[in-house]
Amino acid sequence: MLASPKVPRRDWERGAEGGSLLSRSAIYNMDMDTPTDLPLFTKLYTLAQVLGALIYRGFRSERKRKLKVVHAVVMVSALVCAVVGLVAVFKFHDSKGFANMHSLHSWIGLATVILFACQWLAGFLTFLFPGLRSSLRAAYLPLHQYFGLFIFAGAITSTLLGLSEKAIFVQSVGSESVLVNVTGLCVAVFAGLVTYLLSQPKFRRQATEDEVLLTDTVLE
Amino acid sequence: MLASPKVPRRDWERGAEGGSLLSRSAIYNMDMDTPTDLPLFTKLYTLAQVLGALIYRGFRSERKRKLKVVHAVVMVSALVCAVVGLVAVFKFHDSKGFANMHSLHSWIGLATVILFACQWLAGFLTFLFPGLRSSLRAAYLPLHQYFGLFIFAGAITSTLLGLSEKAIFVQSVGSESVLVNVTGLCVAVFAGLVTYLLSQPKFRRQATEDEVLLTDTVLE
Repeated sequence: MLASPKVPRRDWERGAEGGSLLSRSAIYNMDMDTPTDLPLFTKLYTLAQVLGALIYRGFRSERKRKLKVVHAVVMVSALVCAVVGLVAVFKFHDSKGFANMHSLHSWIGLATVILFACQWLAGFLTFLFPGLRSSLRAAYLPLHQYFGLFIFAGAITSTLLGLSEKAIFVQSVGSESVLVNVTGLCVAVFAGLVTYLLSQPKFRRQATEDEVLLTDTVLE
Repeated sequence: MLASPKVPRRDWERGAEGGSLLSRSAIYNMDMDTPTDLPLFTKLYTLAQVLGALIYRGFRSERKRKLKVVHAVVMVSALVCAVVGLVAVFKFHDSKGFANMHSLHSWIGLATVILFACQWLAGFLTFLFPGLRSSLRAAYLPLHQYFGLFIFAGAITSTLLGLSEKAIFVQSVGSESVLVNVTGLCVAVFAGLVTYLLSQPKFRRQATEDEVLLTDTVLE
């Protein structure tokens, strides 16, 4: 069960050496011969997810219908980034003969992306097309918001697990491991700030005067 | 920077071999000669934190003052468990000559416990003794609730990081790594359920009839 200190590291461990600890290059090589930054699309996914979630908080005076369409488009872009990132990781593993889906990082990451896709589809069907009736939309909204935060927490957890795994694989020491840990704390603080904006009722979008007059459009 | 597959694992890695992957024994050995389950007190800490947080949801018909005292007592027990756990880990590392505070797991874990202690003190001073005036208590309550969730998320993230680290150190393979990952997913689902109970307004404690009549006691 406990490995001796001299045991050579296995393939799936060495596989991680193909990526970079932190982003050393923004150029993403899809043919996977020299994958300089495997997690680039994962970062784009998380960033787009945050932008999409904050749209209702940032543009509170815009019409709700417009915000909903922008929200859906940003979120589908996030999903595309996530899928591109996943395909790249699997292609990279396969090209090197490394095992897929070995670590907790991979399990939490994949579960998060699958949940994200389900959440997008459910949101699209409920709020946009075909768009269910107001009472159903109103009943589903809190669940949609709750799962949005849960999935965001999953993406952040997966990020931190990836960072930690990477630091162990490359055997980071001294100032390098301090850099990894400071990065991790910054990610956690960032997640905390986003969650604060999303969870406090005072930042919620208020219905505009027009929407209140035309009650039916409040939920549109 | 990238280690060759044959590089022997360093001391801080081997240090992790002293603990157990999953709890194999509930007996905690404080003298650290054979620490069979270092993370036991961390588990107790997280569990007590969950119990403390759910008290207002579970005992909604009890007097608020009573719930506040129970909440404070459970949370201070959680803090004691966390501190005992931390002392044990530091003692264990020192006795073996391993470096402390190296991994992201340790940073997030320690930050979480420090935040927890601050949160407990602020809550105690605001709501119990000396107990600030109602308007200040009401203004602080949402922040106290928000940080409660944030700290809980930190404890869960730290748990998952520890689980992942451990799996890498002991080089888990096959069904063992599946067990680790399923455990991790269960922890995540558990955290999601607790967060759901804590975040949904419909589970909130309602003021009792007496409290509404004696308006001043609603915030007590």
